[in-house]
Amino acid sequence: MALRVGVVGGGQLARMMIAPAVELGIELRVLAEEEGMAASLAAAAVGDYRDASTVLEFAREVDVLTFDHEHVPQDVLAALVAAGVPVHPGPDPLQFAQDKLLMRARLQELGMPQPEWAAVTDSEQLQAFLDAHGGRAVLKTPRGGYDGKGVRVVSNAAEAEDWFAALAEDARGGGLLVEELVDFTRELAQQIARSPSGEVRAYPVVETVQRDGVCAEVIAPAPHAAGRLSDVAAQIGVGVAEGLGVTGMLAVELFETTDQRLLVNELAMRPHNSGHWTQDGALTSQFEQHLRAVLDLPLGDAAASATWSVMVNILGGPAEGTLDERFAAAMAAHPAAKLHTYGKSPRPGRKVGHVNVIGDDLDEVAYQARAAASLFLD
Amino acid sequence: MALRVGVVGGGQLARMMIAPAVELGIELRVLAEEEGMAASLAAAAVGDYRDASTVLEFAREVDVLTFDHEHVPQDVLAALVAAGVPVHPGPDPLQFAQDKLLMRARLQELGMPQPEWAAVTDSEQLQAFLDAHGGRAVLKTPRGGYDGKGVRVVSNAAEAEDWFAALAEDARGGGLLVEELVDFTRELAQQIARSPSGEVRAYPVVETVQRDGVCAEVIAPAPHAAGRLSDVAAQIGVGVAEGLGVTGMLAVELFETTDQRLLVNELAMRPHNSGHWTQDGALTSQFEQHLRAVLDLPLGDAAASATWSVMVNILGGPAEGTLDERFAAAMAAHPAAKLHTYGKSPRPGRKVGHVNVIGDDLDEVAYQARAAASLFLD
Repeated sequence: MALRVGVVGGGQLARMMIAPAVELGIELRVLAEEEGMAASLAAAAVGDYRDASTVLEFAREVDVLTFDHEHVPQDVLAALVAAGVPVHPGPDPLQFAQDKLLMRARLQELGMPQPEWAAVTDSEQLQAFLDAHGGRAVLKTPRGGYDGKGVRVVSNAAEAEDWFAALAEDARGGGLLVEELVDFTRELAQQIARSPSGEVRAYPVVETVQRDGVCAEVIAPAPHAAGRLSDVAAQIGVGVAEGLGVTGMLAVELFETTDQRLLVNELAMRPHNSGHWTQDGALTSQFEQHLRAVLDLPLGDAAASATWSVMVNILGGPAEGTLDERFAAAMAAHPAAKLHTYGKSPRPGRKVGHVNVIGDDLDEVAYQARAAASLFLD
Repeated sequence: MALRVGVVGGGQLARMMIAPAVELGIELRVLAEEEGMAASLAAAAVGDYRDASTVLEFAREVDVLTFDHEHVPQDVLAALVAAGVPVHPGPDPLQFAQDKLLMRARLQELGMPQPEWAAVTDSEQLQAFLDAHGGRAVLKTPRGGYDGKGVRVVSNAAEAEDWFAALAEDARGGGLLVEELVDFTRELAQQIARSPSGEVRAYPVVETVQRDGVCAEVIAPAPHAAGRLSDVAAQIGVGVAEGLGVTGMLAVELFETTDQRLLVNELAMRPHNSGHWTQDGALTSQFEQHLRAVLDLPLGDAAASATWSVMVNILGGPAEGTLDERFAAAMAAHPAAKLHTYGKSPRPGRKVGHVNVIGDDLDEVAYQARAAASLFLD
């Protein structure tokens, strides 16, 4: 196919679209933030995604524009739409990924289950929420906030003084988002693919394990989730995708509560870390699916192809120069492990790759994936 | 990894190395025969692989050199080795892939089961072979001969007069290869990966279905082959790989005779059409495995990841300009099918892509793969 997809953002999500694009004959172009990024193997331009003329220039050479992240400003998105560029996901759904207060309000309108929440603009409002919710709550900056940043657990309004001060000086104003501290047993993620034509595919719901606020591990499908829990997760995912008009991949991060309800935590409107397992464990990887969806091609089967898949992130990694040796060691010790690298220089806590393992025995699969990933740590 | 692999030849086999190279962080460079070839998505130089200085220049920028085909002349290979370039497979094994008479003689030394054969230099010798083998035989030109070309079934020595005439004028001389017409029930293929360190991995033996002398379909694993037949196929494969000193991927095409023996038909020292199913149905695809092998990295697990895989080639395809529509139609009707395209303009009989389908029910898997591929035909 001669179809061309432009990806704004040159990180690992764009990079992992390269493999399916090559196999499907889709031409991939990337607008990277700087030289030498993860996706620089694709034909890459370098430029500032906050600059409308830069993005418009880039968009001129592609059939559809999509994203490696959700940070492209609304004015740039509006300029693209005004110029007739097909943009997926579009500005309207993206605003809900860019502003958590907008998201909470919209999910409430849609009747989606979520933690109790409020918009708070000063300490008194926050303290009132704390008093009404057991004295502790999660405070979030509505915009920004990624991988644990912009999120804080507070038990006293005084702990948020710096954020309220910053808010007072923020020209965009608004409030902070405060949410009840959910009593959850585990975190799940539901991925949905949706095309502009309205075709929808739900992936199996997965269990995600966070460490230090960062996704560390994913088990697919989520154990003990068959039946009602899976059905509810898929219903929520489809409801959010359709309700918000998302096109491309959507990830809905969910809390499973101690009383077995599912509550929407966060949304991501792009391929997501919770779906990296699909590269080796699903009939259609999330990266292929995202390309098909944004091009409005028929979607692929989202079923798992393996009984169990476990994905473990490689976080940090060894000192530079020895990554090759770690790869060889991991390959030697775990010949069935699938290694994926992002071409990044290792830094403490930085996601530089991941390991997928598939199989019929979950204990063995998880052991192999964790052991292979651990060989990259010092 | 910063490892660099140079591939001589810019066809679909080189192209299909791109996806695993991206995921493993291997830098792939391709020396293509001309602009716009299948693998041109990788960083590609263009040049003549028969010219030693061109190939040497290309090799200077990579850690190891490998091939998309077996046609690089021995003098070019010798120049590479003399210059200290790691070449896999090396000139010695490659000569057996380049000359079928050398191959037959070497396999005989190794005690490998193969059809009865002879080198014939004139009509009398050919007629004598025919008389001794039921009056019909397969005549092959030792060099060249690809996908049915350079192969002819003869029942009378007079049918070979043109080839003997050509032989008399061929400076490289030698003879023609004549082989008994094997009474086979089906054709199988055994793939082996072997690294320079001597690590060996055998893939499940597969059944290959030829139409008009071209591979049309592959079923993996070969039905009714578990146990003795699989073991013998793997033994033959490993014996050939080790006996000939092959590094990288080796495909051994086999006849299964009516009396259930396996005889070696042809060899290919590179990823092979009979292994395209491994992209979606094996723990390590042949393209990833080839890269690991030629870099002397530890090899991946060669086991199937699905109960059944069926690969059907897309041969020819529709008139130019409508390929996109066929893709969309195949995706819509067969959401679980994995489509792979080579970025080539369709021509009658030309391999322009293939379809893989995996699953637990062979009838259903084969039906889906054939039906999806048939949508590309006019």
